[in-house]
This record gives sequence, structure tokens and C-alpha cells, in this order.
Amino acid sequence: MAAWDSLIRFGTADGREFWAALPLETAPAAGLSVQGFSSIEELESGSGGVDVTVEKLFAPVPDTKIPIICIGLNYRNHANEASLPIPATPPMWYKPAASLADPATEVPFPVQAQNHFPDFEGELTVVLRDSIKNITSAEAPSKILGYTIGNDLTARVFQRSCGGQYTYAKGFDKFAPLGPRLVHPRHITPDARGRITTRVNGRTVQDSHFDFIFPIDEVLAFLSQGTTIAAGTAILTGTPAGVGWFQDPKTSLKDGDVVEVEVQPIGVLSNTIVFEK
Amino acid sequence: MAAWDSLIRFGTADGREFWAALPLETAPAAGLSVQGFSSIEELESGSGGVDVTVEKLFAPVPDTKIPIICIGLNYRNHANEASLPIPATPPMWYKPAASLADPATEVPFPVQAQNHFPDFEGELTVVLRDSIKNITSAEAPSKILGYTIGNDLTARVFQRSCGGQYTYAKGFDKFAPLGPRLVHPRHITPDARGRITTRVNGRTVQDSHFDFIFPIDEVLAFLSQGTTIAAGTAILTGTPAGVGWFQDPKTSLKDGDVVEVEVQPIGVLSNTIVFEK
Repeated sequence: MAAWDSLIRFGTADGREFWAALPLETAPAAGLSVQGFSSIEELESGSGGVDVTVEKLFAPVPDTKIPIICIGLNYRNHANEASLPIPATPPMWYKPAASLADPATEVPFPVQAQNHFPDFEGELTVVLRDSIKNITSAEAPSKILGYTIGNDLTARVFQRSCGGQYTYAKGFDKFAPLGPRLVHPRHITPDARGRITTRVNGRTVQDSHFDFIFPIDEVLAFLSQGTTIAAGTAILTGTPAGVGWFQDPKTSLKDGDVVEVEVQPIGVLSNTIVFEK
Repeated sequence: MAAWDSLIRFGTADGREFWAALPLETAPAAGLSVQGFSSIEELESGSGGVDVTVEKLFAPVPDTKIPIICIGLNYRNHANEASLPIPATPPMWYKPAASLADPATEVPFPVQAQNHFPDFEGELTVVLRDSIKNITSAEAPSKILGYTIGNDLTARVFQRSCGGQYTYAKGFDKFAPLGPRLVHPRHITPDARGRITTRVNGRTVQDSHFDFIFPIDEVLAFLSQGTTIAAGTAILTGTPAGVGWFQDPKTSLKDGDVVEVEVQPIGVLSNTIVFEK
């Protein structure tokens, strides 16, 4: 199997879609000349690559038709700012497949979200290589395809008005930008040595070590008990302190805001918020 | 377009899958001789039917690969028994595609669910004919393919332990039995004239008029604001008073229990709970 350090999924100027391997030191970007493969399997088999130019980066997931899983309250510093007790088991919910958005794109905010406190949540994101069911936490690492970055965009007021259920607030179309690339698990240590930073228009709003209440391996084992999680599923692992709702004063996202989430060596996930008319 | 009163999806003894129209007075059941069509579209076009015998009823949804939507706290009598305030907007969450289960089948309860208070929730269920986004409540009726019955099976303790998020408690494999058939919307009036009854081993535990806080047309409009809901999506519309958690004394489902949910003229959705070893 051909080893890779990071993967991008992208489109070409003539509308074709490919996967390509990038060295960690090469930032994912339009204009790169790479060897494109039709799938991760083909890339790993090392056959069938073609020379192509990256025109547009896509969210680095192998299946865009499946829901995305979110984990909540997984940083102590965020549970503290929210004055919420540490739950006994991980809060989780789904974002629908239509919420997936590409890196370096505009995210349209519908009116329903604009006037209910649009907010960001930068999150380290796991993508599964295999379908999982009833796995142990010891088995979890072998099921991980790679890590990327997610932004769990949220219309904050609906988290409360919908009887405390978070799904509606976070499930609008394009409310789950993922990217810019997938980094092999041997290059990411999802413990306190890792760091995540979120900036809005260049101002740092979240800056935290990974401070997981529920470590990722335990989360994957928990999710899989009695439940089949499809191969290719992206799992956002929770956000640290600093979201707009808990800033002083409360600060919602505005039309035109640029939200960047950075985790190295993955890079920076950047999206522009655009309020729909 | 060929008119139909109700539809079943089913398998034949030789492993093929079909849709067929049934008169309301014919109860869906194995052994029926019907004209089978490969899709609802083909059935409505009236061409291509073949004479087949029903071997096994399937959940009557046109797409088994998409998540199922649940609406919570939508009966005043259930909000009252739960001592929960009426929410400003409808609570909603997704059950994953793998939670779909067929009528008249055994539902395996994983250990994780068995010891966290397994419970039932009988619910009138809408299935969408079209994809919807940004529709009004006046447009909603034309988007409904039909009505069926759902059981929002739940491992009740996880509703609390997962930080109040319901998704995990309700998302185990096969925790969304649907059926036994789809009834055309002209035969169902989802208002106080309709009635839903749930029985456990023949004992009536839920028996209520439809008492929706959020009428179905308003729910569909709300769900679709800024959010694409796929054609074929099943939407469980909430459960009335009487779930096991709020019985006196609290009564969880046990291994071998038979849960029947009845809404006429749809029929009875019956499933047997089987505790996995």
C-alpha cells in the first residue's frame, strides 16, 4: 500500500474529481500540480494516477451522502464557560449530509439562522476508514482514516428554543465545513499536546490545547455500541471555550465574517459567512 | 397517474423487492397475491406490474439509505407527564438510516440499551414525496407521499446522561420500526379526529387523539427553512402520554415483549423486543 501523509479531495477545471497525496509541508491550495486518483483505494494501490491541476478543494471525506456526527461538551473549558455539568456519557447528534461544505467557500446563512445568533465552533474532526459496530477503544485507532478540521456552525438560539435539542440549530445546509485536507493518524496525537485555534476576521477567539473529557478512542467505542457507523463518517470531536455566545459581550457572526480554524499540521479551514437575502 | 389508497413494500420468496397498492380494507400481510412494481413511480404510471405473492413486509419508505427525523414533545399530554415546558419551536433530531426496521420483525436490543431503560413511543409518521427546502405550511400537504406508523424506540437513561441530547438514546440499529403500510394523505386527517394507540403484550399503554402542539404542516415548513430534507424522508411526529418511563411504577420493555402501535386506517405496527446476549 502506498504510504501517504495527507490527502486532498479536489475538482479540476474541467469538472472532474480526484484524490491526491500531499507532503505535510505542502499547503493544500488551488493551482497545485498533483497526481490525481479516482478514490483513496486507488491512490493507496498506487495505480491509475493522472497528472492534474487542483482547481477547487473539496471537503476531504470519501462519502458525501452520509450524516456527520458531532460530539458536544468535550472540552472542560467550554463546559465551564457554558456552566454545564460534565455529562456521564458523550452528548452526540447528527448533522445531515446536506450540511457538508467545502473549505475556502462561502457559507450561505439562511434568514432563519441569521436572526438566531449565528456562531462558530472550531473542532478537530476524525474520519473513519471502516464501518464500526461494537468496537472497543483499543480497536478504535485502526478504524481512523485520518484527521481534518470542522466548523460546527450553529444558530445558537435554536439550541434552547427547540426543547434543548441541538440538531435543528446546527443542521442547516452547509453548516459543516470540513477541510482543508485529511492528515494520516500517525501525524496527529489527539491529546493535550495538540492545539486548536479559531479566528474571526483575524481576531483569535478560540485557542486551546486539546482538552478532551472523552478521548477520541473512547468516543468511537461508545458511538459504536449497538450502532453501525458507516465507513467515511466524519466525527467532530467538540469545541473549546471562546464561542461567540459566551464572549463578553456576546458576539454573533455577521455577514461577510471570515472564520478560520487552525490545527497543525492539518492547516487552516477558512470559510466566509454570507447572509442570504 | 394510477390512484392508490395504500402502498406496501415487500419481498418475495425468491428475494425480489416490490411495491404494491392495497385497498384500505385489505390488511397488509404475508401471503397476499398482488401486482408488484419496482418503484412507486412505476406503480403510479400503471405499467410493468407483475403477479407476485407477498413473503415479507418491509418498512414502506422509498429510500432506506437516508436518516429518519423525529419530532419531540409534540403532544400536550406527553409534555405534561414529562413535566417539560412547551418549547417555542419543535424539538427534532435524526435517527440514522441503520435504525430503520421492518414491521412484524424482531428488534434486537443491544446490551447498551437493555440496561438503560428500553422504552417505546408510538408515533404517526409522515413520508415525503418530494425534497423540500424553504416551503410554507400551505405548501406542505402537496409534499406528503403518505402516512405510516413509527415506533421511536429509546434507551431512556441516555436521554439524560448524554447531556440532554436524545440522539444516542434513540439511534441504535433497528430502533425505528416503520409500517405496516403507507396510506394516501387523502385518507388521514392529522388533527384531533385521529387516534393512536400503543399496546405492550396486549395491554394498552398509550391511547390518545392526535393532540399536536405543532401541526404537521407547520413542522414540515419549520424543518425546511434553510435545510434540504430529502425526498422519501420519514418524519415521526411525536408521541402521546403513556411511555414506560412515566408509568407508575416505571416499566421498561423486557426481552420478548410485543409492542403494537395502531393508527387506523393504516393498521398495526407490531415488533418483538429481543435482548441480545
